[in-house]
Amino acid sequence: MAATALIGIDWGTTSARAYRIAADGGVVDSRAAPLGIQRLGGLSFPEAFAQLLGDWRDVSAPRLACGMVGSRQGWVEAAYVACPAALPALAAALVRTGGDEMAIVPGVTTRDAAGVPDVMRGEETQIIGAVAPDADRVLTVLPGTHSKWTRVEHGRIVDFATFMTGEVYAVLIEHSILGRLAQAPAGTGKSKDGGTGAAFRRGAERGLASGGLTHDIFGARTLALMGELAPDEVADWLSGLLIGREIRTARSWAFRAGYDASRVCVIGADALADRYIAALGFAEVTAERGPQQAAALGLWRIAQAAGLLR
Amino acid sequence: MAATALIGIDWGTTSARAYRIAADGGVVDSRAAPLGIQRLGGLSFPEAFAQLLGDWRDVSAPRLACGMVGSRQGWVEAAYVACPAALPALAAALVRTGGDEMAIVPGVTTRDAAGVPDVMRGEETQIIGAVAPDADRVLTVLPGTHSKWTRVEHGRIVDFATFMTGEVYAVLIEHSILGRLAQAPAGTGKSKDGGTGAAFRRGAERGLASGGLTHDIFGARTLALMGELAPDEVADWLSGLLIGREIRTARSWAFRAGYDASRVCVIGADALADRYIAALGFAEVTAERGPQQAAALGLWRIAQAAGLLR
Repeated sequence: MAATALIGIDWGTTSARAYRIAADGGVVDSRAAPLGIQRLGGLSFPEAFAQLLGDWRDVSAPRLACGMVGSRQGWVEAAYVACPAALPALAAALVRTGGDEMAIVPGVTTRDAAGVPDVMRGEETQIIGAVAPDADRVLTVLPGTHSKWTRVEHGRIVDFATFMTGEVYAVLIEHSILGRLAQAPAGTGKSKDGGTGAAFRRGAERGLASGGLTHDIFGARTLALMGELAPDEVADWLSGLLIGREIRTARSWAFRAGYDASRVCVIGADALADRYIAALGFAEVTAERGPQQAAALGLWRIAQAAGLLR
Repeated sequence: MAATALIGIDWGTTSARAYRIAADGGVVDSRAAPLGIQRLGGLSFPEAFAQLLGDWRDVSAPRLACGMVGSRQGWVEAAYVACPAALPALAAALVRTGGDEMAIVPGVTTRDAAGVPDVMRGEETQIIGAVAPDADRVLTVLPGTHSKWTRVEHGRIVDFATFMTGEVYAVLIEHSILGRLAQAPAGTGKSKDGGTGAAFRRGAERGLASGGLTHDIFGARTLALMGELAPDEVADWLSGLLIGREIRTARSWAFRAGYDASRVCVIGADALADRYIAALGFAEVTAERGPQQAAALGLWRIAQAAGLLR
């Protein structure tokens, strides 16, 4: 097994994952625990960290974490770095825990055209890992409960925008009248055709067109009422609509900043990422899948920039 | 007391209201019961109707109902009439209950530019009641869980669009991360300044501008996180944003149909209608309040057109 140059930790709200990373940035081994910062179950942060590491406690290597562990509710708060946020600025803003157990990567903040703030914490590290440091003008999306679209230039996070698409989908399916007409796939993440079939496409095409979202989503009810959408298609249609509209909005946001937005790097490897890739295809946008282990690679790049690696 | 020319019934999902209506369309008396079609508690429709009427059972007058009582889950289904739906067409499509207890007004359906259906049931009667039969090009809004914007010309419902604004607000406040930062007024309908103060205005102005809705709503979290929105302002800000965006979308829908949309008839008299009137004011649109008892007046006009009145 290659020597461990860095122990990287991706520590979020619901779970934590640790990586042994070699001197070339490759992941040697990883382990996960359901010890997210809101799931500590009475453990202190040092105790939870010791439990996550297990026998890696004795590995002699620097430790760097990203994610909600650096939020106000985390172990130590690592204040947000403002956009444009370059790799050296992130590296310079690391914060160390009280017992010097680890360093923590800060989150990133920006303001949109109307001056309303936006925040990310954890995603900045995945983006730094996913995008080659010398690449010019890369548009990335991290699908998720709150998906993040980011403009990256030469390793700098220039600007980003959050979309609550995943959470809006979930509350509509679970708690609104739209979910009452939806069968089976609703909320389970399981769909016919992996969720990217005909109903998803019909929804996505509606989403990719202009429209008012609170009007357009009502179609999930009326199409079902009129027999033009089967009960087991409602959830996929709605998912397509919401993702399509997000893509439309995010592309025009990127266009306004001078990006051609005909190519997007999708960071993620789950069924949701597959849906984004399918919907980007309907919009004739080339989707490139980001690397596996983007978080580990990002932690390694930030550790390197911070001079943590020997 | 004036003689009763018609007993009108507005019978919805959660409650029912009956009106004694005079020969000139004026409401002589009204009574309500929590006997909505999903709240019958084991009563049959004829039994619930008898309970609602009480001692009005012996009043010798025709009876006409509107609302969900005519839906597939109601007493008798009164099939939707397609737009443009003129008063005579609605009157010609009345359906009678099996025991001839009453006639029921049909709902109305349309399709938007993309061919997706839309429906209303009950609102058509309020609109017929609220808009003078000889008025040309009136744009109306009925605020509610699912608000309806309607274009009315000479007593014809030419077209309409539903917005799930009220329901989206409720599920976001009750079930999403946005509600977790909101204090007190959330979900109670109670707000400082009657819900139309500074925070509502800030939200509405964001809503009236262009943007992606699932991005814009995230501002309720980030503004609170950054201390730029107080916990007791979050709900009003979000309400303003959603209503403002609805107004923006509905106005451009009306513009495309040749309406100048500088004047809107708001049908409703509750706190939600006040919010719409305030937000229309921010957009420099003249809001006119529709008449009280629009449903009763609509039932009377439809009954008259159907030849039910003696």
